[in-house]
Amino acid sequence: MNSENNKFHSQRLYAHRIGIDTYKQAAVFIRCDSEICRSEGFETTARIHVALGNHFIIATLYTVSEELLPRNKIGLSEYAWQLLSAKEGDVVRLSHPAPLNSLSHMRAKVYGHELEMQQMQSIIQDIAKDRYSDVELSAFITACAGDRLSDAEIFSLTQAMVNAGNKLTWPAEQVVDKHCIGGLPGNRTTLIVVPIVAAFGLTIPKTSSRAITSPAGTADTMEVLAPVALSLAQMRKVVEKENGCVVWGGSSDLSPADDVLIRVERVLNLDNEGQMVASVLSKKIAAGSSHVIIDIPIGPTVKMRDLATAQQVKRQFENVSKQVGMKIEVLFTDGTKPVGRGLGPVLEARDVLAVLQNQKNAPDDLRKRALTLAGKVLEFSPKVKRGTGLKLATELLTSGKAWHKFQAICEAQGGFSEPKLAAHKHIITATSQGTVAQIDNRRLATIAKLAGAPRAKAAGIELHANVGTKVEVDQPLFTIHAEAPGELDYAVSAIRSEHDIMRVERGEGSI
Amino acid sequence: MNSENNKFHSQRLYAHRIGIDTYKQAAVFIRCDSEICRSEGFETTARIHVALGNHFIIATLYTVSEELLPRNKIGLSEYAWQLLSAKEGDVVRLSHPAPLNSLSHMRAKVYGHELEMQQMQSIIQDIAKDRYSDVELSAFITACAGDRLSDAEIFSLTQAMVNAGNKLTWPAEQVVDKHCIGGLPGNRTTLIVVPIVAAFGLTIPKTSSRAITSPAGTADTMEVLAPVALSLAQMRKVVEKENGCVVWGGSSDLSPADDVLIRVERVLNLDNEGQMVASVLSKKIAAGSSHVIIDIPIGPTVKMRDLATAQQVKRQFENVSKQVGMKIEVLFTDGTKPVGRGLGPVLEARDVLAVLQNQKNAPDDLRKRALTLAGKVLEFSPKVKRGTGLKLATELLTSGKAWHKFQAICEAQGGFSEPKLAAHKHIITATSQGTVAQIDNRRLATIAKLAGAPRAKAAGIELHANVGTKVEVDQPLFTIHAEAPGELDYAVSAIRSEHDIMRVERGEGSI
Repeated sequence: MNSENNKFHSQRLYAHRIGIDTYKQAAVFIRCDSEICRSEGFETTARIHVALGNHFIIATLYTVSEELLPRNKIGLSEYAWQLLSAKEGDVVRLSHPAPLNSLSHMRAKVYGHELEMQQMQSIIQDIAKDRYSDVELSAFITACAGDRLSDAEIFSLTQAMVNAGNKLTWPAEQVVDKHCIGGLPGNRTTLIVVPIVAAFGLTIPKTSSRAITSPAGTADTMEVLAPVALSLAQMRKVVEKENGCVVWGGSSDLSPADDVLIRVERVLNLDNEGQMVASVLSKKIAAGSSHVIIDIPIGPTVKMRDLATAQQVKRQFENVSKQVGMKIEVLFTDGTKPVGRGLGPVLEARDVLAVLQNQKNAPDDLRKRALTLAGKVLEFSPKVKRGTGLKLATELLTSGKAWHKFQAICEAQGGFSEPKLAAHKHIITATSQGTVAQIDNRRLATIAKLAGAPRAKAAGIELHANVGTKVEVDQPLFTIHAEAPGELDYAVSAIRSEHDIMRVERGEGSI
Repeated sequence: MNSENNKFHSQRLYAHRIGIDTYKQAAVFIRCDSEICRSEGFETTARIHVALGNHFIIATLYTVSEELLPRNKIGLSEYAWQLLSAKEGDVVRLSHPAPLNSLSHMRAKVYGHELEMQQMQSIIQDIAKDRYSDVELSAFITACAGDRLSDAEIFSLTQAMVNAGNKLTWPAEQVVDKHCIGGLPGNRTTLIVVPIVAAFGLTIPKTSSRAITSPAGTADTMEVLAPVALSLAQMRKVVEKENGCVVWGGSSDLSPADDVLIRVERVLNLDNEGQMVASVLSKKIAAGSSHVIIDIPIGPTVKMRDLATAQQVKRQFENVSKQVGMKIEVLFTDGTKPVGRGLGPVLEARDVLAVLQNQKNAPDDLRKRALTLAGKVLEFSPKVKRGTGLKLATELLTSGKAWHKFQAICEAQGGFSEPKLAAHKHIITATSQGTVAQIDNRRLATIAKLAGAPRAKAAGIELHANVGTKVEVDQPLFTIHAEAPGELDYAVSAIRSEHDIMRVERGEGSI
């Protein structure tokens, strides 16, 4: 064809930090009666290419009236300001974004087609570069949910996620790690396993996630005790000095697409298995791990509800890790009741400290689970005979070496802090006498989240009774902790509509 | 359980129209250091219950810095302002929204479970009330896409959509309608069928949609010629006076959930079949139609690509309409090439006028298609013998009665206007000599949309050649029309990456 006129238009505006926080979705604000809206036909909620110097982003545009901005300025949301490294008055150029080819692959997946490696790669590259809107991310996540990823797709998703970010290498021949797929309240074993293993001398560069659908992720809990938002360089220093670390994966740019997806999964309250396998393994591969223990708790109200699904996930984990040359061992563990006594970052951190400090009242279930996992990780070492890992792990804990190592890791990450309890509490008591027969982990987690966890670090639930505990009428079952009175009210009110959170049998009655 | 403290907190702020247009997603803006954020734990992007007098909405909250708002004010987006009927300084109360039960059904659908009528009903009620965020709408749409709705679900979705909005009744025993499922550029038969049928005396209260993924919907095209955003009462008056109307369905609150879904489908550029059947039939049922012709164009680059899919959709249409007691007839039509010469609201309106006014150069394909459909609709009448509808329709058109009726309908809707052409044009010419062998309707539509259609009414594509036309080198193939120079550039530039839009064979070469 003949076409004389090929340039994409682009127009200049002056950057203004408008002071609106749209979280991780970049937004820009322009006068609806500005020259550029008329000449380019930009409308509110359009996706726009925004360039400043050598940086560019795709942002959502909102039009504003004359009181908010002069015609020649563009308001940048906090995230847009940060991504563009903008300064007040910088020249910003706007244009229509080139159509994202990967969106047609995304739509193909929505319609049920299996994606090739190349297609998955282009989707994940665009996601890692923040080019997808939340609506598009939601569609991609939903299209992959409910067992709709094939084995080949899980593998290509894993690879694509690794390729989109940084990748670490370590001098040690063996780099170990452990991961729990989550869903079991209070199962904060990582903070105990890492110091045990590091104290023994193995390299364990642990990156953890923040909560997706739970009241606390390992990164949220660790953050109560020490900084976790370390750069890659800072993380490397910690591991070189102390053999191990517990940092948040999101700030080290390992598998950055995963962090973008998790943000929207959290809003949707959706977890999906194939994506989870890719998420976990991509982080491990990017962190340079060679030997990994995967902990899968199974129970009626945790993520894995039955053995059949757990076995499918195990197979998917083994299949992908085999293809990438990583040694993994999958453990099925008891997921029928909460671990420890706390739910929520601060309350879980207190349980962890009790175990590490060998306190008398330390939760025994958390201690045992952590030692089992640490023992398995230690057995990856050629120096440790099969069957002796648990004993070795127990020695490292009871001798105080693990606690010593944990303090050293916290120091290296920026300094240890004592967890502080919340100001607002409400005790829930038994309405009948009997034995706690069952606890609904999902509903318990929901209450802890309504109370403010994980954002409000001290918010959450403190259990006074677990499955099997005998209780009298009016005996405390659990205490809700909250940082804000409104959130305490909210969590307490919600208990009315959440029946059977803790079922007390004989003398009937459940709450 | 015992719980003394059950009230949900709610706090007062003063309404301020902040002048930010977030389109149809209600948003509110509050100081991040305000009392209410601290006491309630509200964070940016949270979904918040916002009440003013007897109105309430669920809105997305964004936190802002001190320059934008005082601590005791709440900024309302344009849509939030409108939904709450707010006035400056009105007292607004904020609280945590009660959890939406229907979201758990939505998630069940994401995981592949079939929804019961009751579950579908609760999802659609919440959607119709704007309680879903765009991310949640996107998940629901995706979960239903790709043939993932069962027949029972399509029926319950249809019913739920009808129940969530207004429903019209008419004195006439027969209320007729026609609907084209779309995807075929320029196929603007409705604007010709309605005046023919209304001139004959049948009741045809036509509500049309705006474009979902195409450069113009019937409502967009009609809007060039007369107002279409009529209230239910206004629409009723038009039909009582003229037997027919062509209005936008979105402002009459017929099947309002459908309008919410379509808004997000448009962003995702997703059309899905089961949802389409429910969407179409819910509008027809709500409009009070008893007899409906459904036009399904079939071709490699329209919505229905093959006969098998079309037959499945036909079966779904017939199945649901039988259950609701509506008589429908499904017609398969040629969808291999664009109809008429224009794509985009103004350019399509010009084709329609040419046919209605019996102009010599009126596009014959559009005329023939409209007459066939009008004939079928007329045959629903007991006064019209089977096989005589086409002849009757032709008489009503050529006699000028249809054109007269069209003008009367436009007057009743608020007044007829002549379409005005766009200021900016760019002609695409043939690079080789030969015959136009194929036109890619999807790509042609994409170019028209990049040029600004349907928002920019005069934007679009004017075809100078259709399939079968013989062309010489440098002969014009089509002209791109745009209202803004930036959009013209954008559409022209994009042609470079859109090969094979119009394939000229012999003397090879395609553009």
